[in-house]
Amino acid sequence: MGQDRRDFLKLSTLATGALLFSGTNNNLFANNIRTNMKSSKLKLKFYPYTLQLKHVFTLAKSSRTTTPVVLTELEYDGIIGYGEASMPPYLGESQESAQAFLAKLDMEQFTNPMEIDKIISYVDSVTMGNTAAKASVDIALHDLVGKILGHPLYKIWGLEKSKTPYTSFTIGIDKPDVVRQKVKEAEEFKVLKIKLGRDTDKEMIETIRSVTDKPLTADANQGWKDKHLALDMIEYLKENGALYIEQPMDKNNLDDHAWLSERSPIPVLADEACQRLVDIPKIYQAYNGINIKLMKCTGVKESYKMIILARALNLKVMLGCMTETSCAISAASHLSPLVDWADLDGALLINNDIFDGTKIIDGKVVLSDKPGFGLTKI
Amino acid sequence: MGQDRRDFLKLSTLATGALLFSGTNNNLFANNIRTNMKSSKLKLKFYPYTLQLKHVFTLAKSSRTTTPVVLTELEYDGIIGYGEASMPPYLGESQESAQAFLAKLDMEQFTNPMEIDKIISYVDSVTMGNTAAKASVDIALHDLVGKILGHPLYKIWGLEKSKTPYTSFTIGIDKPDVVRQKVKEAEEFKVLKIKLGRDTDKEMIETIRSVTDKPLTADANQGWKDKHLALDMIEYLKENGALYIEQPMDKNNLDDHAWLSERSPIPVLADEACQRLVDIPKIYQAYNGINIKLMKCTGVKESYKMIILARALNLKVMLGCMTETSCAISAASHLSPLVDWADLDGALLINNDIFDGTKIIDGKVVLSDKPGFGLTKI
Repeated sequence: MGQDRRDFLKLSTLATGALLFSGTNNNLFANNIRTNMKSSKLKLKFYPYTLQLKHVFTLAKSSRTTTPVVLTELEYDGIIGYGEASMPPYLGESQESAQAFLAKLDMEQFTNPMEIDKIISYVDSVTMGNTAAKASVDIALHDLVGKILGHPLYKIWGLEKSKTPYTSFTIGIDKPDVVRQKVKEAEEFKVLKIKLGRDTDKEMIETIRSVTDKPLTADANQGWKDKHLALDMIEYLKENGALYIEQPMDKNNLDDHAWLSERSPIPVLADEACQRLVDIPKIYQAYNGINIKLMKCTGVKESYKMIILARALNLKVMLGCMTETSCAISAASHLSPLVDWADLDGALLINNDIFDGTKIIDGKVVLSDKPGFGLTKI
Repeated sequence: MGQDRRDFLKLSTLATGALLFSGTNNNLFANNIRTNMKSSKLKLKFYPYTLQLKHVFTLAKSSRTTTPVVLTELEYDGIIGYGEASMPPYLGESQESAQAFLAKLDMEQFTNPMEIDKIISYVDSVTMGNTAAKASVDIALHDLVGKILGHPLYKIWGLEKSKTPYTSFTIGIDKPDVVRQKVKEAEEFKVLKIKLGRDTDKEMIETIRSVTDKPLTADANQGWKDKHLALDMIEYLKENGALYIEQPMDKNNLDDHAWLSERSPIPVLADEACQRLVDIPKIYQAYNGINIKLMKCTGVKESYKMIILARALNLKVMLGCMTETSCAISAASHLSPLVDWADLDGALLINNDIFDGTKIIDGKVVLSDKPGFGLTKI
């Protein structure tokens, strides 16, 4: 299965490729490829990597300077798909738990990487949780399949490259002079995302408004305790140019979010309250939209289904991320022509990205035309 | 753009094909292909065709010996995708209305067939109705894209070929000796579908049970007028081996269907009550499942979304058809690994099929491995 086999594959591909464009089909060659492909197996590799954040990252309940990730490689017949699990500590996964999960997987049982549904169902069935680790396999598998098909995923999914949104850029909670500096550094971005949910919220907004009048998006990360105060804050945010608000209150508080979503002048989005597909029917009447993240929902396959479900239930859709390399960001970005808003700045917040793929150009998500998610290792 | 251009494309494909399998990417060639592809346009052709039924087809409200269809061809760069609109007269479309719709379409505005979402959105926006005519474009476009990618659609969608279901075979309403003869002719099928909704329902079941004990499925086509009588009939059907019942009562009668679905010992499926994606959120609480047909819902793109939505809302899913050639049947069949039950016998009910594609072998749906929907003209 070494050089000879690869040479044979090249030769077969040459033949079928040419025949495709001349509009006929050559069963002899096609069968040879299939027969040969069946003898190969999916091989999974993974290793830990630590993302170095450019700024200390402060949320409502924690702050940190690194994010642990695990990078995956799924190999089939010499073609490698890349994946990533990003694990901000507050979500309950770690490099250890992700690697323990990945070590459990028997990927070599699969001899046909094109059977994505079957493979993803298996991976999901192995444990209840481990959504980020599962996403790392889903991403690698889609990247691999895109490379096998020879096209970027957005194209295989029938999407328009030009429909990618602008991404917001996150300004973390910090002292006023640091916030002002961050806003200046974010000059190329058209929309700024503000982390709220603390008693300094208005001060944060005022600081930002002192240096820019760009539209804002706001994420309270469950930080507000009272629905009336939340509504007051949202009205204040609306007056200050906010486009939407994420997860104002506790994720388990459906009634108060329903009350708020009915009255809010801007869409109220579920983030912590909406992890996976099964959550949408449970929460959709209490929110105006959802924030989908690969790491919460096990990857692009389930994200795609969540977008379709959310649309059918008249929910707005945003696509978010963790701090991630351009690997996971590129994967999410291929779905972004389908959503209302994107917050895909994760790779811009780190110093040690090791993938080249989707780029953010003048604030807009720009997909690569290379096969798969267009990933190359830097 | 004649022979020279095609030769150039072949050459470029040879190069990128080989490079794909050696795991690198050649931008020069890739860009050349893209640039050249952009200069081509989608070209739509269509023509009427009349299906000759093997048996007089009797439903609750009508009977007939032919079904009018319109066949479409969508051409791009010498590659042709095939499509079909089937129009049983009771649905309100005709060869004239379908052709009038297709004549309105400006498909030449599209220079990239891979942008399925954009193209399908345009086609759907041209009129409110014409779902079968729209499906004929959707089917042709997917077939074309599959041929461009060089793979069957089920594979591009990541589905398992072996997961295709058995199809039911429809035994139309007829005199007892004809029914017995039809059941004998249907020997290879594992499940028989019975059209009910008339006052001869029990006689029909008894006739069938006198010659076979195969499982049945039943379709009342809105024929029953009273929920209590409907429940009695369903219990009788369950005792006689029925797997599910389609559209027992009037499609607008949600309350009685909700009452029935709660009590029925077998799943109650919406057919006439569920045409398109937007119908599912309206009716899902009144039924246990839905029957998806390409001709009702504008094609495979929307069918795929309907399957995802139905699954998320805990609905059973069956995939049905009209009398159709193997063109539309093949298109539906590539989605069939995703559903619980299939009724894809449409091409078996006619004498003058003009496509070779998906086959029914010993009652099971067997997909072709040729690109697109695997269609060739007979």
